[in-house]
Amino acid sequence: MIRFKNGRVMTMTNDMSIENVEVWTDKDKICFVGKPTAEQLKNASFEREIDLQGNLLMPSFKNAHTHSAMTFLRSYADDMSLQDWLFKQVFPMEAKLTADDIYWLSKLAILEYLTSGVTANFDMYFEPEAYVKAHIESGFRTVLCGSVSGDASNAERLEQDYNRFNGVNPLVSYRLGFHAEYTADYELIGAIGELAKKYKAPVSVHNSETQKEVAECVDKYSKTPTELFDSLGIYDFGGAGFHCVYMSDNDMDIFKNRGVYAVSCPGSNAKLASGIAPLCKMADKGINLALGTDGPASNNCLDMFREMFLMTALQKIAEKDAAAFDAKKVLFAATKGSAMAMGLDDCLSIEEGMQADLIVIDLNQSNMQPLNNIGKNIVYSGSKQNVSLTMCAGKVLYENGVFHVGEEADRIYAKANEIISEYSK
Amino acid sequence: MIRFKNGRVMTMTNDMSIENVEVWTDKDKICFVGKPTAEQLKNASFEREIDLQGNLLMPSFKNAHTHSAMTFLRSYADDMSLQDWLFKQVFPMEAKLTADDIYWLSKLAILEYLTSGVTANFDMYFEPEAYVKAHIESGFRTVLCGSVSGDASNAERLEQDYNRFNGVNPLVSYRLGFHAEYTADYELIGAIGELAKKYKAPVSVHNSETQKEVAECVDKYSKTPTELFDSLGIYDFGGAGFHCVYMSDNDMDIFKNRGVYAVSCPGSNAKLASGIAPLCKMADKGINLALGTDGPASNNCLDMFREMFLMTALQKIAEKDAAAFDAKKVLFAATKGSAMAMGLDDCLSIEEGMQADLIVIDLNQSNMQPLNNIGKNIVYSGSKQNVSLTMCAGKVLYENGVFHVGEEADRIYAKANEIISEYSK
Repeated sequence: MIRFKNGRVMTMTNDMSIENVEVWTDKDKICFVGKPTAEQLKNASFEREIDLQGNLLMPSFKNAHTHSAMTFLRSYADDMSLQDWLFKQVFPMEAKLTADDIYWLSKLAILEYLTSGVTANFDMYFEPEAYVKAHIESGFRTVLCGSVSGDASNAERLEQDYNRFNGVNPLVSYRLGFHAEYTADYELIGAIGELAKKYKAPVSVHNSETQKEVAECVDKYSKTPTELFDSLGIYDFGGAGFHCVYMSDNDMDIFKNRGVYAVSCPGSNAKLASGIAPLCKMADKGINLALGTDGPASNNCLDMFREMFLMTALQKIAEKDAAAFDAKKVLFAATKGSAMAMGLDDCLSIEEGMQADLIVIDLNQSNMQPLNNIGKNIVYSGSKQNVSLTMCAGKVLYENGVFHVGEEADRIYAKANEIISEYSK
Repeated sequence: MIRFKNGRVMTMTNDMSIENVEVWTDKDKICFVGKPTAEQLKNASFEREIDLQGNLLMPSFKNAHTHSAMTFLRSYADDMSLQDWLFKQVFPMEAKLTADDIYWLSKLAILEYLTSGVTANFDMYFEPEAYVKAHIESGFRTVLCGSVSGDASNAERLEQDYNRFNGVNPLVSYRLGFHAEYTADYELIGAIGELAKKYKAPVSVHNSETQKEVAECVDKYSKTPTELFDSLGIYDFGGAGFHCVYMSDNDMDIFKNRGVYAVSCPGSNAKLASGIAPLCKMADKGINLALGTDGPASNNCLDMFREMFLMTALQKIAEKDAAAFDAKKVLFAATKGSAMAMGLDDCLSIEEGMQADLIVIDLNQSNMQPLNNIGKNIVYSGSKQNVSLTMCAGKVLYENGVFHVGEEADRIYAKANEIISEYSK
């Protein structure tokens, strides 16, 4: 067992309120939250006691949309439109990647997640075997999202991967999904709708990221992407839409009625000039919201602190209202909201029985002082620099700048540089 | 002398290009940039040699608009409009501050600047004596900006402070300035215009931060704030406008013709829902641009990395153009542009004779890998965490998370908490 003591704890069971309790973990789970009696302490056996010295223990962040292995394209193709960026730069470079490349590039992303207090990603990429290996070796939790595109024959591969990777390891799960409406045939989308019915499973997919995407879908099908997906059974058992920047009232009603999560990626939407998602309106309608960084080629970092500030700041601008989308909503989306969108129902909060996916926030730094409101400090002035410890499934993977992921960071950096210099020749 | 060797150097004399040179400092100045001969090395005497191990040395950031001592109001009054925030929360709390409070609260801000690679601030606040003491003791460079408001009698105090604090210490300078049009009588603005003429000096002032401010000024004077200021001689010798969110074409022409700097504060403008400044249009017109965080009560942090990303990201959204306001423009504004707006003409770049205001960026971190484009990495995925050393006037004030400012950080944090808990009773 590991004992966290002498700290402040934000359990996320009661908004951003802070409790003075201890938290104990046993293997991968939280086994105690409270003020222990002398008897309980006498009977407990700790392999490690972590003295928090007044710092904050809270649930880790979950990154509900990313493409981890795109680390190799960071700062490689900036300052162009999403369509040009995707079709002229990203797709041709990705076509060169081998499974081994994806293994190394995913490991690079995992390091960055850990520095930002993230312990799980909802990741859409290819070469799942290499990808899963990188995550299991690192001790990092991942939810793979199906990424097929093209014609209906690819539904078979999706179903195989779904059955193959779901539960291959306690850290790994797999959700039905596909890339996007504009890269999938009508028949493929229909076939995936059939899979949703067959497995009573949610489906997650890029949805309404750009005005162009929606307009072209309406031209083609006389339906928005959300309407098209819903007509084909994609959202019959819920799921997620990634981005959701251009949503009609009817789209929002479908999301609400089907219990679909809108996963917002404000950094990527800003950098690619896609726009600002109508999060306030979706929240008012009772739609579930989650937060993701998107991939490092479009963001260009995997920093949930920057993402949290953008989530609220862009809403304040769009709504012309400084009270819009407050810190409480942001912190919920970045932790519980994202976990729920990913199906990680045992990674929601600091409670007995939940997975021990936890972070320590160093409050003893200038950007966290004074301690007027710790939750607001995290959202409005927090930084990766405040993350002093990241624990996933009960294991400390990052502490005081040092990684414990079974591989030297320098080797991972060298591999990433090798890959991009080879392919950009 | 201090020797920086084995590093990459972005001198900022040639955009974002990287050179493999050494940089030597002597007392407060840069004394050598290049590849030393054996003879030069033999004759040099170094008190310290810093092996950069491939990391980046670059000019430090300059924060061209802030109110440092407002640290005590961080996360204290969020989620309200600028006018309510200012008149109902900020001004009443500020009225309670003593000179000693401002001394400690400024020291807290200095710590945060250093973690973000900032070595100089353009600071508008009151109690200049306590404020200057805090900065000199810390070894941190500051440009005080006059902050008077009210009636014409206050012009006298401004003139006294201008003569008293300018050059009181090599780290300190003072520029004529006042709070804003909406807090100053017409006669005061006129009297400050006279001072500008008398001293042939630039004047810096909040300008066109909100739509309401501009509309009320037009109602009152039939002139925008910029037009009013110009009619009274405020900008006869240049100066700066802080924020500049709502600028007419004529306002921009005045800025251009008078050589006035537009200091953008995108984080604060977003958080207070003020809007997005027309930076692309101003850049196209050839207006000088600089970057500031604004105070920690409205931002809520003093993080130039977050500010740099916001500077470009918000322009991309506003212009609906992913190529808008690229990394080169941002990096220029945050270093040279800001220095020039502050009159720090010897803090522009890494060249012999310039002040040794330098930072080391740790490239050996996950968010900086791979090294496709170091300048873009800094703007698009950089973080405070990458700042491993901050040097001001040749002295290392921050290195690997440790401050060298003549005061324990913990004592400063305790003082800030005491002040806010006393005043919020």
